[in-house]
Amino acid sequence: MPRYLLTLEYDGKAFVGWQRQCADVGLSVQGVLEEAIFRFCGQKTTLHGAGRTDRGVHALAQRAHVDLDLSRFLANEGGRRSPEILLRDALNSHLRGHLLTVREVVAVAPDFHARFSAKSRSYLYRVVISPHRPILREGRVWHRPLTSHAMARLGARGLIERLDFLREQSSRMLGSRDFSAFRAAGCQSPSGVKDMRSIDIELFDDELRFTFCASGFLYRQVRLMVGSLVALGEGRLTEEVFDEFLSLSPSTSAENLRRIRRLVPPPAPVCGLYFAEVEY
Amino acid sequence: MPRYLLTLEYDGKAFVGWQRQCADVGLSVQGVLEEAIFRFCGQKTTLHGAGRTDRGVHALAQRAHVDLDLSRFLANEGGRRSPEILLRDALNSHLRGHLLTVREVVAVAPDFHARFSAKSRSYLYRVVISPHRPILREGRVWHRPLTSHAMARLGARGLIERLDFLREQSSRMLGSRDFSAFRAAGCQSPSGVKDMRSIDIELFDDELRFTFCASGFLYRQVRLMVGSLVALGEGRLTEEVFDEFLSLSPSTSAENLRRIRRLVPPPAPVCGLYFAEVEY
Repeated sequence: MPRYLLTLEYDGKAFVGWQRQCADVGLSVQGVLEEAIFRFCGQKTTLHGAGRTDRGVHALAQRAHVDLDLSRFLANEGGRRSPEILLRDALNSHLRGHLLTVREVVAVAPDFHARFSAKSRSYLYRVVISPHRPILREGRVWHRPLTSHAMARLGARGLIERLDFLREQSSRMLGSRDFSAFRAAGCQSPSGVKDMRSIDIELFDDELRFTFCASGFLYRQVRLMVGSLVALGEGRLTEEVFDEFLSLSPSTSAENLRRIRRLVPPPAPVCGLYFAEVEY
Repeated sequence: MPRYLLTLEYDGKAFVGWQRQCADVGLSVQGVLEEAIFRFCGQKTTLHGAGRTDRGVHALAQRAHVDLDLSRFLANEGGRRSPEILLRDALNSHLRGHLLTVREVVAVAPDFHARFSAKSRSYLYRVVISPHRPILREGRVWHRPLTSHAMARLGARGLIERLDFLREQSSRMLGSRDFSAFRAAGCQSPSGVKDMRSIDIELFDDELRFTFCASGFLYRQVRLMVGSLVALGEGRLTEEVFDEFLSLSPSTSAENLRRIRRLVPPPAPVCGLYFAEVEY
C-alpha cells in the first residue's frame, strides 16, 4: 500500500498532545487525524508521528506517515489531482473544526518511517522581554516582564542586553553529550546522551527565538534548557551551577545526578514551544 | 493638569471597538481603559484616542491622551518611579483580565491632542496565501486559499506571483485623491479626499503585509482597498473597473458614485487589520 508523509501544523492549546489517549481525557492530534482519515476514506489506520509532542506544544511542521490506498478516489476524479493534493485537501476539509491542518503530503518509499528515518529534529522557543504583556502574541510566547530591577542590573533591554552571553553559554551545549540534567521525570529514553547539532538565538525586536536542532530530545529537554539559559542570563543561576549541569556523563552517580537535578530551574512554559522541523 | 499620551496594544476580537458605548453591547477599549484609570486613582477621565478603531480591528500602537494628577502617588513612592512608568505599570496591573495593554506612556504638552496633533496614521493588513489554513496565525490574518485553479492561472504561489503588479497598482493610489469608492456606508468624514503618503507591500514567506500611511482614513477604507487590490491580483476585478475607482473626484455626480461603489469588491475581513502607528 502507498505510504504518505504528512506535514502538520497545530495549535498546542487545542490538544492533550500528539498521542492518542485510551481514556476520554481530551483530543489528541493523532486521534483527530486518524478520525479524519477514517471519515474521508473509511480506512482504519495508525499514524506514526516523528515526535510525540506534549500537551500544549505547538507544531509548525510535525511529520507523520500513514499507509493508504487512494486508488478508488483517484479513479473517481479521473486524475484531476495527484494523490498527494487529493489527500491533503480531503483531510483538511475533515479537519475544519480543529486547530490542526495538513500543510503538505508527499509520497514516500514503503520503508520510510516518520520517526526512525529522521536524522534530526528542531524545536523553536520564543521569549518576549517587555515591560507590558505581548497581547497579540499571547499563548504563543513566554513573556518575561522587563522590570526596572532587571533594567538596573542588565541594561535598558534587560535580558536582551545579554544576547552575546546567551549565545556563548548555549554553544557550550553543542555536540554529543549527556543532557540528563535537562530531563523531566517520566522520560522514557534509555540514555540521556543526545547529539546537539546547533543552537541559534535570534533577536526580533523584543523577542528572542531559540532554535535547537538535535538527533533527538529528552522529555521536556527544550523547556528545561530554555529555563536554565534564561535564568543564567537574568542572573538567577550562576555559571558554576550551570557548569555542573553540563558536567554529567553516563557514569555520574545516581546520588550526584539527583543533587544536580534539584538545582535545575523550572522549565520554560509550554506556550512558547514549537516543534519546528524534522530533517530526513 | 499634566497630560499623558498612552501607546496601546489590543486584540480586536475582545472589544466592540475603540469607542465607549451607551448601551451594554460589550467592552470598548476606551471604556475598559477609563475604568482602569478610575480604579487606579479614583479620577473620572475622558480618553481621547488617535483613531476610532472598529469592532474587531487589532492595534499594535493605538494612541490616546488623558489628563491626570498623579502627584499623590508620586509623593507616596518618594520618586522611585517616573510618573510615566508609574502610570503604565499601574494601568497594566488593572488591565490584567483584558486583551489590552499600555505599551508606553509619555508626558506631553497641555495643547497636544492624540487625534488632532496627528500628522498621519498607518494601518497594517496581513494576507496569507496558502493551500491550508494558517493555524498558528488564525484570527490574525486573512487567509486566501491557494487553489489549484489559482495556481494554474497565476503560478505556483498564486497571488504572491503578482506582487510586482500589486505594488504597481497600489502606487496608483498615492497622493491626495478622492477615495470615495473605498468608503463604507455610515462614514462620517465630510470629504472623501485623503492624502495617501505611502503604500508598502512586503512578502514574508506565504504572507503579504500591506502598510498604508495616510493623513487619515475613511470608514473601512483599508479593508475596502485591500479587498480591491486582492481581487485585482486574483483576476476577479479588471484594471478598467479599478481605474473607475481611482477616477472619482469631489465633483463626481451622486449617480455615478453610486454606480461605481456597487462595483467595489467586499472589504477584506477585519481579523487581518491592525492600527499600526500614529505619526506626530
